[in-house]
Amino acid sequence: MTALKPGVTKVAILGFGTVGSAVAKLLSAGYLPGLQLALVYNRDVARKRASAEARFAGPDVLWTDHFEDVLRSDADVIVELVGGGEPAGTWIEQALVAGKSVVTANKQLIAYRGPELARLAQANGVQLLHGAAVAGGVPVIPGMLQGLSGEAVTRVSGILNGTCNYILSRMERGDSYAEVLKDAQRLGYAESDPTADVGGFDARAKLCILARVAMHAELDPEQVPTQSIAAIDAIDFAYARELGCTIRQVSKAQQLSGDCMYARVAPMLVPLDSPMAWSQGTQNMVVSTGRFGGDVVFSGHGAGGNATAVAVVSDLLAVAQGARAVTLPVQPKGVTGDSVAPHYLRFIVDDKPGIVSAISGALSKVGANIDSLLQRRGYPKHRLPFVVTTEPTLNSIIAAAVDSIAAMDCMLEPPLALEMLVVDDKDEETA
Amino acid sequence: MTALKPGVTKVAILGFGTVGSAVAKLLSAGYLPGLQLALVYNRDVARKRASAEARFAGPDVLWTDHFEDVLRSDADVIVELVGGGEPAGTWIEQALVAGKSVVTANKQLIAYRGPELARLAQANGVQLLHGAAVAGGVPVIPGMLQGLSGEAVTRVSGILNGTCNYILSRMERGDSYAEVLKDAQRLGYAESDPTADVGGFDARAKLCILARVAMHAELDPEQVPTQSIAAIDAIDFAYARELGCTIRQVSKAQQLSGDCMYARVAPMLVPLDSPMAWSQGTQNMVVSTGRFGGDVVFSGHGAGGNATAVAVVSDLLAVAQGARAVTLPVQPKGVTGDSVAPHYLRFIVDDKPGIVSAISGALSKVGANIDSLLQRRGYPKHRLPFVVTTEPTLNSIIAAAVDSIAAMDCMLEPPLALEMLVVDDKDEETA
Repeated sequence: MTALKPGVTKVAILGFGTVGSAVAKLLSAGYLPGLQLALVYNRDVARKRASAEARFAGPDVLWTDHFEDVLRSDADVIVELVGGGEPAGTWIEQALVAGKSVVTANKQLIAYRGPELARLAQANGVQLLHGAAVAGGVPVIPGMLQGLSGEAVTRVSGILNGTCNYILSRMERGDSYAEVLKDAQRLGYAESDPTADVGGFDARAKLCILARVAMHAELDPEQVPTQSIAAIDAIDFAYARELGCTIRQVSKAQQLSGDCMYARVAPMLVPLDSPMAWSQGTQNMVVSTGRFGGDVVFSGHGAGGNATAVAVVSDLLAVAQGARAVTLPVQPKGVTGDSVAPHYLRFIVDDKPGIVSAISGALSKVGANIDSLLQRRGYPKHRLPFVVTTEPTLNSIIAAAVDSIAAMDCMLEPPLALEMLVVDDKDEETA
Repeated sequence: MTALKPGVTKVAILGFGTVGSAVAKLLSAGYLPGLQLALVYNRDVARKRASAEARFAGPDVLWTDHFEDVLRSDADVIVELVGGGEPAGTWIEQALVAGKSVVTANKQLIAYRGPELARLAQANGVQLLHGAAVAGGVPVIPGMLQGLSGEAVTRVSGILNGTCNYILSRMERGDSYAEVLKDAQRLGYAESDPTADVGGFDARAKLCILARVAMHAELDPEQVPTQSIAAIDAIDFAYARELGCTIRQVSKAQQLSGDCMYARVAPMLVPLDSPMAWSQGTQNMVVSTGRFGGDVVFSGHGAGGNATAVAVVSDLLAVAQGARAVTLPVQPKGVTGDSVAPHYLRFIVDDKPGIVSAISGALSKVGANIDSLLQRRGYPKHRLPFVVTTEPTLNSIIAAAVDSIAAMDCMLEPPLALEMLVVDDKDEETA
């Protein structure tokens, strides 16, 4: 049980924030053999060096705010935690070309440029690992890369954004969107501009990485449709519960026949007895559905510096030992966000006779059948929320009908249309 | 993204039963690059060759009932699916010495002899992989080996035996033990002698493998205490529900200070709002608790030929590509099944005045405090079931008290003592 590469592997950390300092803490905790922190890069490095977290770095560590020092150093592996497209992308390229392996948690960069950077790593005989890019400390990527490499995965779905899950699982208990968002910002779960999280763009990058790892499909993140959770109201949780559901931001990608794949990030109604409904707070969850082994669920607290640092140092051990996962060829695929599903449509109207007839008319015109109509008591006639659910219908057809309904005079707000997630009956032997 | 080892890797399957034929099916399905089934060994091989599943093996496969043919063949890797201690152990040794890698689902063999066989594989420059030995198609072992290698795992607990989970989750819905066991046998979930499953011996082997993979501890399976689920009665589910719990066969191993580790397999009361309570049917579930990243949950259908075959062919791809997981040094540890926990004690008595006083006396004599006393209406006085729960107390102290209580004249059946699992408040940042 010896390491394949003897001696000590020297580590440089780029970005000494929450995750970076947690990585330093784990490296200094004494339970990880063969790894040594050699260098920390950060802008305004003097401030970081004076921080309480600097004690985890040890006295012999070189502190710098010049990236060139990192390239010139004897670090074997670089932990990239600055995030975003640039300069992270250029720095990773330069490190790989300089013969240094790279471990990164940068989901945007890996989603947009992963295969290209993997080829560059291979050409330079080094590794590029990104186990922390999806679900932080939950080993979804390593588990799929190795443990599900022999599965024909047909669908990956999950809760990939802890901020949205925190917001929605608190709204489920009766708090308002605005109030919960403010709390999330105060607790450091949400940015001051929460668009990347609530708009679905963070989850979209992770979904594209999962599609690549689990289904060997290369998707263009820009083609994956997203829907914001910002339009969800307390009333939607009340109606969802009447339907045996709650609401979660769901990321879903599914094999279709041909060169196209379904992929979408949107708030959806999920059945209360499904694993996704159980995820609370900042929890992440991924459900992989395979042709042979059925459903496999991974879950845990994805966010947080310590959890993400666990994934980073696990990748560092792999670099140190020359451990490698199975790799399978990846194919580019087109994307559609269109699928056949039952839908939840919520309207807020100034109630007048004939509204239900007009709405059902607009739906039947496009061929969408109404499955149920829900109207809770206790709301004023002049601002009445009510809900229609449809039988399984294409998202795009529902969208067209909702557009025409939105134009009606009585509509006080744009209607909300949510896909309702159907949980398959799971046969143990699926093939 | 090319394989490290070019060309085709030839596979021999030892044992063409449910899993073996499923492995052949996956290998013939055309989605796994670089793997070719070359040979099938089975006793009475003519019968297997005439079976419907033989079509998955293809026309060029060599069928044999002589193990020597396997050793002499040009197979690069042997899939051992005959199970049990011998001859599987000797065959694996011979294959490794002959320079053939081995992929096995044999939990008993890996639990008892894993490190020794791993050293033999290393000495011969080949691989020994056993991803299918725990939780079948749920990638717990690969996920932990790679994705949690950087975590300081303090506890592993889970539902590791699908048969027991099928029985207990059906009893939860009101069926009797005897009735459900009969169904499990008819469905092929339970053996005609169910001792290995219901007695906890199957789960114990898997728990020892998990302790090794997740916590780098080498346990002697014989030292891990087990408790059978056979004494659980319908009334226990009724009382458990009053306590906000259900009953599951739980396997749990936990780091202690020093050279000893807690490990135990037993039916326990688990809170209804904990992941383990949600597992239904033959589902498997593993919860890993880490010092840094908190809880990570893996779950899915562990049993079944197809799910297990997914784990086997994933290991075959790793062998074919020379992929290797991180390895960390393993330390032998002693085992105790003793831990401080609240307990559920169920008595069936011929009711007379003074019984409660006698029981509480026996408990207070050993220092165990009663937390609650439950007695449901509607049972006859001459055969009255009632329940006492205790404050957190050592298992061994409870056992001593229960022994003395069992000797009382009024006891119509041996009392049942179950540990009550306490779910920690999970802090996201645990260290």
